Amino acid sequence: MSEIVLAVDLGGTNIRMAAVSADGTIHVSARGKTPPDVSPAQLIDLTGELVNECVGKGLSMAEVTAFAYAAPAPAAKANDGVLTRLPNLPTLDGMPLSDLLFERFSLPVILENDATAAAIGEAWLGASRTVENSLMVTLGTGVGGGLILNREPYRGIDGTAGEIGHICVEPAGHPCGCGSRGCVEQYASATAVVRMANEAGIRVDSARELHEKAVDGDEAAAAVFHRMGSYLGIMLAGLINTINPEMIVLGGGLSAGWDAFLGAVHDEIRNRSFKAPAERVRLARAELGDDAGIIGAARTAFLIHRHKH
Amino acid sequence: MSEIVLAVDLGGTNIRMAAVSADGTIHVSARGKTPPDVSPAQLIDLTGELVNECVGKGLSMAEVTAFAYAAPAPAAKANDGVLTRLPNLPTLDGMPLSDLLFERFSLPVILENDATAAAIGEAWLGASRTVENSLMVTLGTGVGGGLILNREPYRGIDGTAGEIGHICVEPAGHPCGCGSRGCVEQYASATAVVRMANEAGIRVDSARELHEKAVDGDEAAAAVFHRMGSYLGIMLAGLINTINPEMIVLGGGLSAGWDAFLGAVHDEIRNRSFKAPAERVRLARAELGDDAGIIGAARTAFLIHRHKH
Repeated sequence: MSEIVLAVDLGGTNIRMAAVSADGTIHVSARGKTPPDVSPAQLIDLTGELVNECVGKGLSMAEVTAFAYAAPAPAAKANDGVLTRLPNLPTLDGMPLSDLLFERFSLPVILENDATAAAIGEAWLGASRTVENSLMVTLGTGVGGGLILNREPYRGIDGTAGEIGHICVEPAGHPCGCGSRGCVEQYASATAVVRMANEAGIRVDSARELHEKAVDGDEAAAAVFHRMGSYLGIMLAGLINTINPEMIVLGGGLSAGWDAFLGAVHDEIRNRSFKAPAERVRLARAELGDDAGIIGAARTAFLIHRHKH
Repeated sequence: MSEIVLAVDLGGTNIRMAAVSADGTIHVSARGKTPPDVSPAQLIDLTGELVNECVGKGLSMAEVTAFAYAAPAPAAKANDGVLTRLPNLPTLDGMPLSDLLFERFSLPVILENDATAAAIGEAWLGASRTVENSLMVTLGTGVGGGLILNREPYRGIDGTAGEIGHICVEPAGHPCGCGSRGCVEQYASATAVVRMANEAGIRVDSARELHEKAVDGDEAAAAVFHRMGSYLGIMLAGLINTINPEMIVLGGGLSAGWDAFLGAVHDEIRNRSFKAPAERVRLARAELGDDAGIIGAARTAFLIHRHKH
C-alpha cells in the first residue's frame, strides 16, 4: 500500500485536489469552483465533495496520510494551519483550516503558501530540479514569487517572503490594490497587460488575445509586451543583484507568452544587473503547469510526516 | 594561550588590521592608507607592515591561527581566496590573495566580502545579535548590503548576493557607474546626497556638512535627506516584501545622519510593504561601527578553522 497525500490548490476562482504519492505521481484528481464569498463551512464541504469525487475515481482513504493545502495566504510554518491575509478570499480570513479539516477527516493538515508551493514543486520535479538557489515567479492575475535558497524553501519570519509582485518599479506609477504605486504587478501581470493594451487603444479582453495579436505582427500589441517585459526585467535585475540565484522559473498563465516579452527582460537584466550574476542566471519556463502548487504542497507534507509513520 | 585571527578590512582608501580572539575581542590593531593603484606585491608588503605594527603592540604571532580578509569583492566560498571584480581597487583584480599571504606568513587565509563581513559582525555581537533573519545596509560612498538568513550568511552562488545598492528605484533616473540608471546608490549614498545637495544649489562638500545644515534647520538640506530616505525606503520596502526580515541594520558613515532620513524611510515602508512584514521589521543603527567587517571576517575564520586545531 502506497502512502498518499491529498493535496489541494485553493485559488480565488478554482479549487483543485489531487492524490499524490511520495514520488510526486498524481493518481486521481478533482476540481471545482471556489464560490464567491466562500465561508469556512462551505470550504470544508467543498473539500469533502472533492474527496468523494477522488474516492469515486478509485482513491482509498486508508492510504491517505495527510492533507496538504496550498492557499494564497502566508504560511509562516508549514504546519501552522490558520488562513490569514487572503486579499482574494477575504471571507476565509482567520479560518482554522487545519483544525476544521482534522475534525472532519481525522487527518493531519499542512498549509503552504501557493507561490512557495509552486516553487517547491518546480525545484523538486520541474524546471529548477538541478539547482540549489532559484526564484519562482508566477505571472497570472497578479505577480507572485517563491524562493528556494540552498535547496530549502525560504518563507521568512511571518511566511510573507516572496511577495515580489509588490516591489516598486515606478515610484509615481499606477496605483496598486496593496496601497502602493508602481508595483511590478501593475505592469507585468495578465491583468496589467490587458489594462495597458486598453490604455493604448487596443481592444482585447485577455492577455492571450493580446498575445495572439502580437504573434500576428500587431506592433502596438508587441509594444505592450515589451513594456511588460521591461518592468519585469527591472524587478528581476534587482533580485539578481540581491539573491544571485542560479535560475528564475517563470510560471502562471502569462508565462505562455514569454516569446513576446523575454527579449525585454534580458535587456534590462543585462543593463541593470552585475555581470557575474547576470551571466549566471538562467531564465526557464515552469514545467509542471497547474500542478506545481499541488506537487509542492504534497512535498512539504511528505517531508514533515515522513518520520511519523 | 588564546587563539587569534588577524582580521583585515581592505577598503579603497584605508586598510585596517586587528588581532581578534574567539570571543570577538579586539586586542591590538593597526591601520594604513591603501596606496592608489595598489599592486598585489604592495598589498602583501603593506599587510606585513601592519603585522609588524601589531607585533610591536604586543601581538605574539605564535597565537595567530589564520588571516581573515574582508574586501570589496565577491567571496563565493569563504575560503576561495582570489580577488575579483573590485570596482574600487581594479589593480588587484585576479590577485591570488590567499596563496600570496600563505607564502609570506604560512597561515591559512579566508576571504569575505566586506558587506557580508559587516552583516556577520553585527549578527554575532552587534545590533542584530538576537534575530535569525537580518539585512545589513551600509550607507557610505556607495550602498552595500549583506544578508543573514536563518542565522547563516547568504552569499549566493557567485558570492555577489547582497548587491542591493544597484536595485533600481527610478527606471529613467541618474546614471550609475554600474551601467544602469536610477540605482538606489545614486540617491542614498553619501556621494549621492552631496550631488543632490549641489543640484539643489546647496554648497557642501560632505554628507556630514549637509547633515549639520539639516540639523540647524536648513529646509533645503532637510529636503535632500527626505529625498534620500524616500528612495532608500522604496528599496527597503521591496526587500521587506521579498525577504520578510526581522531587522534591517543601517551602518556606514551616512547612517550617522539617520534622524534626518528615517521618517521618510518609514513612510515608504508603511505605504509600500505588506502590513505583516512592515510591522515586524525593526530598523536599527549598526553597533560595531568600523569594526563590524573586521569582527565578521574573524568570525568566519573561527568557524572554518575551529575544527582544524
